[in-house]
Amino acid sequence: MELKRPFLLFLGDAADDLTVKTAAGIVDWRKSWCVGQWRLSECKADVHLDDMSPSDAKAQGAETMIVGVANAGGILKESWISSIVEALEAGLDVASGLHVKLEAFPAIGAAAKRTGRSLHNVRIPDRTFLTGMGTKRRGRRLLTVGTDCCVGKKYTALSLEAAMRAKGWDADFRATGQTGIFISGRGVAVDAVLADFISGAAEWISPEAETESHWDVIEGQGSLLHPGFAGVSLGLLHGSQPDVFVVCHEPTRKTMRGVQAPIPTIRDVIDLTIACGRLTNPDIKCVGIAANTQALDEKEARDYLASLTSEYDLAATDPLRFGVDVILERIQYEA
Amino acid sequence: MELKRPFLLFLGDAADDLTVKTAAGIVDWRKSWCVGQWRLSECKADVHLDDMSPSDAKAQGAETMIVGVANAGGILKESWISSIVEALEAGLDVASGLHVKLEAFPAIGAAAKRTGRSLHNVRIPDRTFLTGMGTKRRGRRLLTVGTDCCVGKKYTALSLEAAMRAKGWDADFRATGQTGIFISGRGVAVDAVLADFISGAAEWISPEAETESHWDVIEGQGSLLHPGFAGVSLGLLHGSQPDVFVVCHEPTRKTMRGVQAPIPTIRDVIDLTIACGRLTNPDIKCVGIAANTQALDEKEARDYLASLTSEYDLAATDPLRFGVDVILERIQYEA
Repeated sequence: MELKRPFLLFLGDAADDLTVKTAAGIVDWRKSWCVGQWRLSECKADVHLDDMSPSDAKAQGAETMIVGVANAGGILKESWISSIVEALEAGLDVASGLHVKLEAFPAIGAAAKRTGRSLHNVRIPDRTFLTGMGTKRRGRRLLTVGTDCCVGKKYTALSLEAAMRAKGWDADFRATGQTGIFISGRGVAVDAVLADFISGAAEWISPEAETESHWDVIEGQGSLLHPGFAGVSLGLLHGSQPDVFVVCHEPTRKTMRGVQAPIPTIRDVIDLTIACGRLTNPDIKCVGIAANTQALDEKEARDYLASLTSEYDLAATDPLRFGVDVILERIQYEA
Repeated sequence: MELKRPFLLFLGDAADDLTVKTAAGIVDWRKSWCVGQWRLSECKADVHLDDMSPSDAKAQGAETMIVGVANAGGILKESWISSIVEALEAGLDVASGLHVKLEAFPAIGAAAKRTGRSLHNVRIPDRTFLTGMGTKRRGRRLLTVGTDCCVGKKYTALSLEAAMRAKGWDADFRATGQTGIFISGRGVAVDAVLADFISGAAEWISPEAETESHWDVIEGQGSLLHPGFAGVSLGLLHGSQPDVFVVCHEPTRKTMRGVQAPIPTIRDVIDLTIACGRLTNPDIKCVGIAANTQALDEKEARDYLASLTSEYDLAATDPLRFGVDVILERIQYEA
């Protein structure tokens, strides 16, 4: 995948900030690649870039418009079609992380042909996979798991990669979703492979390492306790065969994203992850909790994290607020 | 899907009988639809029909050749291409339950065009699905689960549907794999939907029933403890929201199909199925064990089943040998 930079981020008519987590992820980790955001009039989301139209963005050097919306089901709304056509006509390529191919919409396909611009569908795998075998591979692996979708699994993994590298560890972030692919320029959206090949794709994403000490830091997906997405989470867990995992959690959320189910406890997630994960790595263990404490003030956040450490006897942090060094210390302690 | 009957079953160069379980399933449940089998010279499998070539089969009235092989990964071997072309040229349609589309092979696509015959890919969904919601639906549901792949989940479900109907229960078999679709003429191969939609597809396969007392008897897939396929099994479990489940087991098998992992115990499968299944049905319970006792003589089989009943306090039977009435009795006792 070769996306021309810089980017204009299209937020469409997104109803809230969680819906534009693809755009927000790119801004948080690769802000220098972005010239602005484009919001339709009904849009309630904001990733805090300058608002501009595709032609304004082109004038400022933009090369690609990224559809920065991540709705359930990964669908392209009819109401976005004319906006995507407008971007192509303004001279931008368009890249999407949705399940559907951009060219499946005749108006978009025709506009791309007419303007000579490229369409990129990063969520749609450009290769096939084998079924998972569960064979042990060289190297060490960390997987981020969650009590829900959208609780910080990708940010935690990216933070861990950065901190490991800062300490001189040999570590690679492994993207398993469209936003991670936009950020790291590689990876596979495991929720978009055929169901038979989830764990096989995960094995491909995190192949045998050259050395025993190399770390793959694998972005988790969904939750083993989410009624819509647990199959993806389990296949990813088995294929990743993690030595250690970190549980990501959003303490103020009451029900799971998009459904009526209550948020499971961190204990539930730890227990089920170990019960399932030991199939492909008998030594799997939890090393930390990454909580998104955005809704708490600093004292509340520190108290909450201390209470987690005391309850679970694990490193607990908010990666974006307090870093992840406590998790790395725990990994070294366990080794 | 409208497949013209009768069928010629193509066994290719299958190395053993488990590899042709698609063909064997059609013979066991719909023998009257089949005129013969076609085996290449290296074939070690046999579904005990008359051996014949496509032109012989056509002369005996065959309309469709079914690729009756179910290998890991659902791939079409290069060495079968000329056989499929030969079938088309003999005047047969060709239907496949593999992951790859028949027309993806240029020689096959060209032969179909040249001969005017149809190609059917029953494993490739002809519709899209929503993501799973986990909302409770009216009606009762039974799911067959397994200690491994290929242990009798489909046969047990078909036996249960037949026995329920014989007793006047309102029951429908719900196919979730290609063989079940060939047998029942409907269904979705859940291992071939995009990973994000496994549980959503399972919800579609077993929709809200018209009455509380209606039974959906849902064909299970894989095993929650198989490193290659557990993601499919978990999404199917969540989407099926079964009230009751039956564990299928093959007592003589030592390692899981296609991988090195040991077969889990029936207890492991019951515990993990309940731990995961209660997310979408808090009242989920195990009602029976269906063992494939083919390798045991009658006394050994009866002793083995008695030992299971005593160990697990559950109905235990071999559906094909001793019927499933004991399981229906247990369901009534639990209700």
